Amino acid sequence: MSKPIIYVVQELHNEQIALIQKMAPDYQVITAKEAPTLTFEEDQIEILFGWRKDLGTRLLKSSTSRLKWIQMISAGVDYIDLETIQKKGILVSNGSGIHAVPIAESVIGILLAHTRSIHPSILNQQKKTWQPDLTFTELPDKKILIVGTGNIGIQLAKLSHAFGMLPIGVNRTGHDVSGFAHVYAQEKIDSILPEADIVVNILPLTAETHYFYDSQRFSAMKDGVLFINVGRGPSVNTSDLLAALVTKKIAFAGLDVFEEEPLPVESPLWEMENVLITPHTSGQAEHFKNKLFAIFAENLPLFIQSGTLARNNVDLTLGY
Amino acid sequence: MSKPIIYVVQELHNEQIALIQKMAPDYQVITAKEAPTLTFEEDQIEILFGWRKDLGTRLLKSSTSRLKWIQMISAGVDYIDLETIQKKGILVSNGSGIHAVPIAESVIGILLAHTRSIHPSILNQQKKTWQPDLTFTELPDKKILIVGTGNIGIQLAKLSHAFGMLPIGVNRTGHDVSGFAHVYAQEKIDSILPEADIVVNILPLTAETHYFYDSQRFSAMKDGVLFINVGRGPSVNTSDLLAALVTKKIAFAGLDVFEEEPLPVESPLWEMENVLITPHTSGQAEHFKNKLFAIFAENLPLFIQSGTLARNNVDLTLGY
Repeated sequence: MSKPIIYVVQELHNEQIALIQKMAPDYQVITAKEAPTLTFEEDQIEILFGWRKDLGTRLLKSSTSRLKWIQMISAGVDYIDLETIQKKGILVSNGSGIHAVPIAESVIGILLAHTRSIHPSILNQQKKTWQPDLTFTELPDKKILIVGTGNIGIQLAKLSHAFGMLPIGVNRTGHDVSGFAHVYAQEKIDSILPEADIVVNILPLTAETHYFYDSQRFSAMKDGVLFINVGRGPSVNTSDLLAALVTKKIAFAGLDVFEEEPLPVESPLWEMENVLITPHTSGQAEHFKNKLFAIFAENLPLFIQSGTLARNNVDLTLGY
Repeated sequence: MSKPIIYVVQELHNEQIALIQKMAPDYQVITAKEAPTLTFEEDQIEILFGWRKDLGTRLLKSSTSRLKWIQMISAGVDYIDLETIQKKGILVSNGSGIHAVPIAESVIGILLAHTRSIHPSILNQQKKTWQPDLTFTELPDKKILIVGTGNIGIQLAKLSHAFGMLPIGVNRTGHDVSGFAHVYAQEKIDSILPEADIVVNILPLTAETHYFYDSQRFSAMKDGVLFINVGRGPSVNTSDLLAALVTKKIAFAGLDVFEEEPLPVESPLWEMENVLITPHTSGQAEHFKNKLFAIFAENLPLFIQSGTLARNNVDLTLGY
């Protein structure tokens, strides 16, 4: 039987690839880049570092695949077939934690682009128009509802606090998380929504959170609320969001994720004055490769030794 | 002799005007709005609340003017004739402190608009273009040089610290200010400039700070520095700034103030991709009127009683 394979989809530095080979001498390390020039049995892949839809789908379908561990790049793993993965006893680890700082910074940046009228000023600059007659607000004493209290939510709560805002959390069970003034359970969110000046979605996408934000939920929000979505697009019913934006129930939406990505050119969202669109980039990080590699390199020895993972293990039943 | 006049240029609520009249029963309160319909002697104006160039200039020229106190709206008072004011023994108070929170928020907003590529994404949205292939950086461990350590600088240092940046201050004498890792004297700035990833100008405009940022100073900065000016336009030599932006010595400039305002339509700054322009609005505040009124209302009784001011007194020799 040939050596098991570590298949590396994620782009790495040569030194990092060499380090993997050194840590796992009994494995063959193949990168996606060199794969087309090599002869190997896909079924021999035991570890997949990074996800590629075509390859991943083939491996999950194959009855003879040796696949045992997938190291994902993203925090959310909603777009892979968790049911099959769980049935086959495959482990999944994610990139959670890497994204906390960049996403929290993006949320504050999008928020200030609106509250400090930087957004309209950028558009005015295009027209060479000096227009100081805009609306300005400040953040102190604003209530920010952070829906999702994982790494990203905790970092956002920390920054919100520094700006003098009151961070309130929402999570599945309502369990307390440090850094939040209060935490509500997801099912109780409607009781706090009317008080929030700002609502930020960071929920992972699961059956429970699909269309979590619909017309009923938007109508429970404060008039003129600011809504930011850096979680997953399908957590929001886009038609209902559009309706709430047209009536100005939602004064401003900062959207990094969408039901369909890339956002189709026909979407009315592109042209709405009270919408700021970023192309699913809020989690992009400067030293991303190194941070992701650190997760993989911490997991690899334990996986080889005992078939378990040291960190970033995804609970396949919960889906995150 | 007729009653001395409190002339209110600044727009106020009716209740606030009534309160001034109640606090100063021996004065006649005249607002700029009602002035055209009234008959009064301008020379009788003893207190000017807010600045109007035409009226102010006339009063300073008049040898019979009773003007004794000007409550300015802005923090910087560089645009009024401080020499004449000092000679005539007129007091000046400013709006310093009101602007700290909004300006610090604007600086962080402008900075994140660049580092999180929100700026190019807003422009891409105009073209309905989904373009995630942009540059992203994070703020932790970046050195931010805050030139000016007054209320605004202190607030900015506080926020910078929360983002994990290292705030370094610069002020006239190099005296220590809490919240800064180090503080350098203005004349020693070139020794620290090469280390700063971000330089933010908040200096008041004085003879010493005119063209403080010139080609020599820009060339002392780190390659690819981010430069933000929310102080005063004439602290920067615009031609030298343009040159540094063209060579990308300055990777990005966020400019709220300019040598000439409004920025002339011919200025090349409007079209530069690495420039974000806001129209001198970084200090705009939500509850501005109330905060400014609070300063005036605190000063008024002491002024009436003893001819001195309780707070926000401008040192006419220093110019701030």
